Amino acid sequence: MPRKHKVIKQEFQVSFNYDVCFTKDLFDPTNALFANLIQSASPKVARKVLFVFDEGMYSHHPDLFEQIRKYAAEHEDVFTLVDNLITIPGGEAAKNDSTHVDCIHKAINDANLDRHSYVTIIGGGAVIDTAGYAAATAHRGIRTIRVPTTVLAQNDAAVGVKNGINAFGKKNFLGTFVPPFAVINDVNFLETLDQRDWRSGISEAIKVALLKDADFFSFLEEHAKRLNRREEEPMQELIYRCAELHLDHIATSGDPFEMGSSRPLDFGHWAAHKLEQLTNYELRHGEAVAIGIALDVTYSYLDGLLSEQEWEKVLNTFKACGFNLYVPELQNKLDQPEHEESIFRGLEEFREHLGGELTIMLLEEIGKGIEVHEVDYDLFREAISKLETYEKQPV
Amino acid sequence: MPRKHKVIKQEFQVSFNYDVCFTKDLFDPTNALFANLIQSASPKVARKVLFVFDEGMYSHHPDLFEQIRKYAAEHEDVFTLVDNLITIPGGEAAKNDSTHVDCIHKAINDANLDRHSYVTIIGGGAVIDTAGYAAATAHRGIRTIRVPTTVLAQNDAAVGVKNGINAFGKKNFLGTFVPPFAVINDVNFLETLDQRDWRSGISEAIKVALLKDADFFSFLEEHAKRLNRREEEPMQELIYRCAELHLDHIATSGDPFEMGSSRPLDFGHWAAHKLEQLTNYELRHGEAVAIGIALDVTYSYLDGLLSEQEWEKVLNTFKACGFNLYVPELQNKLDQPEHEESIFRGLEEFREHLGGELTIMLLEEIGKGIEVHEVDYDLFREAISKLETYEKQPV
Repeated sequence: MPRKHKVIKQEFQVSFNYDVCFTKDLFDPTNALFANLIQSASPKVARKVLFVFDEGMYSHHPDLFEQIRKYAAEHEDVFTLVDNLITIPGGEAAKNDSTHVDCIHKAINDANLDRHSYVTIIGGGAVIDTAGYAAATAHRGIRTIRVPTTVLAQNDAAVGVKNGINAFGKKNFLGTFVPPFAVINDVNFLETLDQRDWRSGISEAIKVALLKDADFFSFLEEHAKRLNRREEEPMQELIYRCAELHLDHIATSGDPFEMGSSRPLDFGHWAAHKLEQLTNYELRHGEAVAIGIALDVTYSYLDGLLSEQEWEKVLNTFKACGFNLYVPELQNKLDQPEHEESIFRGLEEFREHLGGELTIMLLEEIGKGIEVHEVDYDLFREAISKLETYEKQPV
Repeated sequence: MPRKHKVIKQEFQVSFNYDVCFTKDLFDPTNALFANLIQSASPKVARKVLFVFDEGMYSHHPDLFEQIRKYAAEHEDVFTLVDNLITIPGGEAAKNDSTHVDCIHKAINDANLDRHSYVTIIGGGAVIDTAGYAAATAHRGIRTIRVPTTVLAQNDAAVGVKNGINAFGKKNFLGTFVPPFAVINDVNFLETLDQRDWRSGISEAIKVALLKDADFFSFLEEHAKRLNRREEEPMQELIYRCAELHLDHIATSGDPFEMGSSRPLDFGHWAAHKLEQLTNYELRHGEAVAIGIALDVTYSYLDGLLSEQEWEKVLNTFKACGFNLYVPELQNKLDQPEHEESIFRGLEEFREHLGGELTIMLLEEIGKGIEVHEVDYDLFREAISKLETYEKQPV
């Protein structure tokens, strides 16, 4: 006889909203954006703001904290600057060392920040991820203002709802889904990027264009060389449209906190994450994503999903932007898919991180992805060879 | 001239839902509830389940893991038991030592849990808070099934959306808002509670009744002596109604993740949290809450908000349940409100944790609270004296 249980069915919705702003000279005395954002949430009381800087960014903008000090003095009725500036290294170094999180927690405690205070993070995606995780877990969530300073962070990492650090050798093993209070993209920061960081962000734009917007892909194809020459205008357009597509995806996908198994925007990422690890993070995330996408696009072509013409278009667009589409690590232990050093191991690690069934995205045509749940290792081996050949002699 | 900024306004909702179940003999072979909950979310694939036990609970139920092993074997098509049982101490010891969180993260990594796996936590509120925080931050959220084993956890702590641990000497300094996958209240666990833990949970029921439901308060007043004599029937009713009121508050308050300043259910908690700390956690949370509420109710009466008759009713109901309503720590440094050891310091710590303006709840009548933003220290000093007198000679 089945038992009877009393059950209370709990159900509720939570609304999230935040502004993603595009500006220039953020802390110039004449730019009221930053102060206005804080004031809009708290018209009467001055709130505390703690700053976390990416060391790399700070070395290119050594006057920034002094500028912020002056800005804060002019807006003292709106916010109070915490004088304790936290700096952490950029790139995966930030995410691989959990003491940065501890250090930010300590600074939050020392400054007596509360849930109406702010942590403003100025830096690349890794610094934003790390400091964002620290802020999200202090007092169950201090508000964050993200000021991403790389192309990749401005068009992708910083506009979304995630944060996290690496642990146990796994990318983003620790983290939460917590939207920011606001995101501010200041184009000035892009000028001081080195060439690799400038380029890295382009691959996420190509990715989202391939999956969602053929017109945007045409724009990228057309402007690839100008982007590679560091022209600011097409880059601003790229960042705006890419951020917009990401935000739209988060808002309309029906699963912003990824409770299900699918993650359609992670195109090419199973291989990318593994390649970052296999190259000891010598590859930047965006560089690894370019290779990961090239691999899955080549697989899509070999599998008969994608036309040869579109396959060439995709690879040539990456190439024109200056990307390298092959690294020797792709060939590691290809005969032992379970081996820690095999690229194929990335499939299982990807599945594990998402949970549930393996779900990867392939390309049917430019602007249209298709999810699959099984892959053919031999076809991937062929795709890797094809990339090696292409890299030696582009079509 | 004001600058023009491009702004993308991001806005989306996230739906959360979970069952709060009331059962008996949870892992009895004939009880399908646990397996059914997992199967409902994943009809085809067996999911991994890691168990975290409260050491105190385990010492009273030494056969429990063996029983779960058998249960898992019978439901192997639904879930796979992770053989590595984690046990952590109960009470604030769990929350004061962050190595428990690290240890659970390690176990999650060792067992390769993914976002479709489960951490099932069996224990008191502190263990559920600690293990819940660990689960919420691994892979940005492993699903948790909470099996609270104390009255306090069954009717309050475990049905809500929070988790966390203490840090820097502050309660719940680290934590997140992440709802559980399910909550299962098994009445069997209440039988082995010691008298203090049995009683402790009653104060949260009195609290929520005072604020929201005069009928429920009458029920508690009427059954106070039977509750103190450990009769199971009124206790089951108390837990069900209290859980229901909590869940309803979370779903309908409009601010389940507490982004605003108000937290109406934290009646009496500014003093309670501080008293726990001042007594080195000698006071159980529920015992401290009883004193905190008695204090704020007495203040409400002295302030002219609450009638003398209702004031007496509240104190006498606590008394009939067996609560002590005065501890000498209430008198610490009353002339130095900013002093670390003064109860008044709890007001600022409470404000800081919530953020924003100080907001505390007082009582207008039984079943109806009222928020205030300023307090009168002298009136609180008088209320403390009154409690001391009452404790010596109840009215």
